Amino acid sequence: MEKTAFDANIVQEMLTEKTELVETLKNDVYSTYKTFPDKTLNGMKTTLIYPATKQHIAKYSEQEFHIVQESGEDYKKVTLPYVKNKALSNQWVYNILNKETEADRIVFEDTCPDSGFILLPDMKWDRKDMDALYLQALVHRRDILSLRDLDQSHLPLLKNILEKGLSAIKEKYGIPANKVRSYLHYQPSYYHLHVHFAHIKLDNPGFEADRAHLLTDVIENIEMKSLYYKEKTLVFKVREDDHLYKAFLEHGCIQK
Amino acid sequence: MEKTAFDANIVQEMLTEKTELVETLKNDVYSTYKTFPDKTLNGMKTTLIYPATKQHIAKYSEQEFHIVQESGEDYKKVTLPYVKNKALSNQWVYNILNKETEADRIVFEDTCPDSGFILLPDMKWDRKDMDALYLQALVHRRDILSLRDLDQSHLPLLKNILEKGLSAIKEKYGIPANKVRSYLHYQPSYYHLHVHFAHIKLDNPGFEADRAHLLTDVIENIEMKSLYYKEKTLVFKVREDDHLYKAFLEHGCIQK
Repeated sequence: MEKTAFDANIVQEMLTEKTELVETLKNDVYSTYKTFPDKTLNGMKTTLIYPATKQHIAKYSEQEFHIVQESGEDYKKVTLPYVKNKALSNQWVYNILNKETEADRIVFEDTCPDSGFILLPDMKWDRKDMDALYLQALVHRRDILSLRDLDQSHLPLLKNILEKGLSAIKEKYGIPANKVRSYLHYQPSYYHLHVHFAHIKLDNPGFEADRAHLLTDVIENIEMKSLYYKEKTLVFKVREDDHLYKAFLEHGCIQK
Repeated sequence: MEKTAFDANIVQEMLTEKTELVETLKNDVYSTYKTFPDKTLNGMKTTLIYPATKQHIAKYSEQEFHIVQESGEDYKKVTLPYVKNKALSNQWVYNILNKETEADRIVFEDTCPDSGFILLPDMKWDRKDMDALYLQALVHRRDILSLRDLDQSHLPLLKNILEKGLSAIKEKYGIPANKVRSYLHYQPSYYHLHVHFAHIKLDNPGFEADRAHLLTDVIENIEMKSLYYKEKTLVFKVREDDHLYKAFLEHGCIQK
């Protein structure tokens, strides 16, 4: 369950005598209240996963975290086998790419098999609050697992997503490029290349410096050095009960 | 008004048939719902200021932000003159380095004039909650404004801060290196080179991917290419009422 961002129209409706206030503190001009708006005005959001695997449950449980420094060698030796054996299914991505689900939610599509992608709202965005704008671009190619796979051969794809993604967002929602953050996650939550587009005002837990890589930085780094992301040490935060963390421990690549 | 964090006991009470669910999306094992719990379980917090001055109103009014892409040339032409003319005084930093203030708060010092630094708790940390651990290392050298100035000549300084900073934190607070994020800000809030050390669990608004640069990444990028941070486009978020934003506009380096 998640509490959702305020909607300006609904806030207006809350500012009536139907909202109960219980004073908790008063000092000079300042006072605080517990506030109980009408139930219909104070909706939340629930995401249900059913049936849920153990991995799903672990993903949403509270955990200890560790910082991992993954070298290019660590990736080949530890992470890649993990991704091939343990990662969650991408079937839901293929359903979207095949237009079997969510076809009505597509904001933009470039159908080119090499540099094309589908842009659609992230499940976390209600599509109403523009300050919380959040979309994802899913590439049509199915052979790129993550940032680690990218080199100069992918520059046309990356530039295409940056340019057409931002211009589709401008056209559809009126939000200009200088208000939109575009980035990739490493580690990503699923291993099919995708790019996040989020409003600069969105307070997004996935925009931490040890997870988010700006798309413009990715392009510039690869232009400077084609193998940048194959050789660079990539730093990420990992949960103690994550199979990937256990794999790093087993290989002696990190210490407990 | 603010939505409050979930309380585990109240979440239990929400998980009953009294909570209304309205399905909004379904794909494979995943589905989402609008959720309306009983009003009494779904309280918020309100802060009232009455009467409010114009300053109060300005403080809580929405600010516009923009993403700026600063090239190495932009830095020399726009940012450097701004830093030299407009940035806040570093006198408070020099007071610390001279032991004129906060000497009793120093956690560790390396007195070497070239690669030395003073490590002390950030003002935002209460020094009690270890999950909120937050320190800063201030370098003794006074000629390095920010990340932009760094090249291979600074590698001994940077490696010294990383190694001795993390080991001082381990020794003093018992927090190991794999739970501590070390990073630089760009733009920084003051232009005297410093490094942030924060606990991995700290939900820190200064750790966004368009502000925080991991110290290990900085070292590796400079090892790969000495002029990396002098030439790289650096992306940052800026407030519309910030002098730096106005300087970028005046120079025609960004469009409104």
